[in-house]
Amino acid sequence: MRQGERIDDLMKSGRKIIQRDKEFCFAMDSVLIAHFPIFKRRLKVLDLGTGTGVIPLLIADEVEKICAIELNGEMAEIARRNVQLNNLSEKISVVEGDYRRIRDFFCAESFDLVVANPPYYPVKAGEANKFVGVANARHEFTATLEDVVTAARFALKFHGSFCMIHSAARLTEIVDALHRHQFEMKRLQMIYPKKNRDANLIMLEATVGGNAGSLKILPPLVIHNDDGSYTDDVKKIYGLSITY
Amino acid sequence: MRQGERIDDLMKSGRKIIQRDKEFCFAMDSVLIAHFPIFKRRLKVLDLGTGTGVIPLLIADEVEKICAIELNGEMAEIARRNVQLNNLSEKISVVEGDYRRIRDFFCAESFDLVVANPPYYPVKAGEANKFVGVANARHEFTATLEDVVTAARFALKFHGSFCMIHSAARLTEIVDALHRHQFEMKRLQMIYPKKNRDANLIMLEATVGGNAGSLKILPPLVIHNDDGSYTDDVKKIYGLSITY
Repeated sequence: MRQGERIDDLMKSGRKIIQRDKEFCFAMDSVLIAHFPIFKRRLKVLDLGTGTGVIPLLIADEVEKICAIELNGEMAEIARRNVQLNNLSEKISVVEGDYRRIRDFFCAESFDLVVANPPYYPVKAGEANKFVGVANARHEFTATLEDVVTAARFALKFHGSFCMIHSAARLTEIVDALHRHQFEMKRLQMIYPKKNRDANLIMLEATVGGNAGSLKILPPLVIHNDDGSYTDDVKKIYGLSITY
Repeated sequence: MRQGERIDDLMKSGRKIIQRDKEFCFAMDSVLIAHFPIFKRRLKVLDLGTGTGVIPLLIADEVEKICAIELNGEMAEIARRNVQLNNLSEKISVVEGDYRRIRDFFCAESFDLVVANPPYYPVKAGEANKFVGVANARHEFTATLEDVVTAARFALKFHGSFCMIHSAARLTEIVDALHRHQFEMKRLQMIYPKKNRDANLIMLEATVGGNAGSLKILPPLVIHNDDGSYTDDVKKIYGLSITY
């Protein structure tokens, strides 16, 4: 443990996670997307923009092998220590690097599943001074929607799956980007803060190849009850992973 | 009233509707999409594929003027009688015709709002013998998704709104078709038969022009409670229109 760091309990197979107070700490988004893929067989998985490695730590038991790439050197270093801390060095490998140059790090069409919790918001004029770790994780300073879809397509085998959580407001852009890169959306779930509120997030699975017209829109995932407590659906996910 | 016809109560401003037992009778879909547009000002509206005219009858009080087009001659004739029956001849005009030849009937960019409850299902091999009124209303024998979006774009003014109810499975095709015709989706609502079931329908509003990235995904619309009764959300809509 170093100064400014803390260890949180992942509540999954006794796993722990080191996070830095000043950097971007993982939020519910990572937990939700970690539970979204269908782990049918022992998959080879790539996590694009892993941060401190929370998604690999949560899904390690379900998959064959996980590669995780992270641009921010401090975060990548913490992710590596998290892997060691949890004795998962044989299953998870962390690469410090920029997935906009994915060809420098991985072979084409070498993964079965790509997961991503990418930045949600386009960069607007006047925001360039926010160039720090937190801003990179939230805003598209270092990777756009186009970048993450491009990287996913490069990494995935034909018929491989790409699972992503993203902003609900950007659904139509996401459909466009997927189609430009040979993906077709197969599962989509809307995430609503409360049952009478607009969706703020979406989770989706798209496959390389595949036909249009067979999209499944999964039951709504509502986060909070009217009284502010977590819904049973969220508790069920968190029961398998994390408590706050 | 003629043989094989019945009159149903629209439960809206005392309105009645004639339907034919053997033809496609309007379903909940028409009621839901009739309540979806935002009627901000006195709009000029076009209903593509009006059937017996249920959407115009339901929205007549909210708008300036409605034109309704219907391919099936018997349905168009019933729609005309429904307009007369409800003393709405000054507000609603019914045209018998094929909206794939929309230029023959209406001026370009002459409407503020287009509504449609089009056929949901692509035609598959072996279904060509189902060429009857009911099949036309359910399957794309006479109008495809591309046809309805093309007609809507032709009819709408710049910044005009297109509101449609369609199959959830076809969401990505719908996004594509809208983008090819200068539409951007602005509001989207998923319709779930029950809260723990996949969505079967979607309702959307798209505008001509407009930027991506500002989509609102509205709260989930769940039709039935777990015990099979209608939810309060549906009762609220039906309270304004129809009871079964």
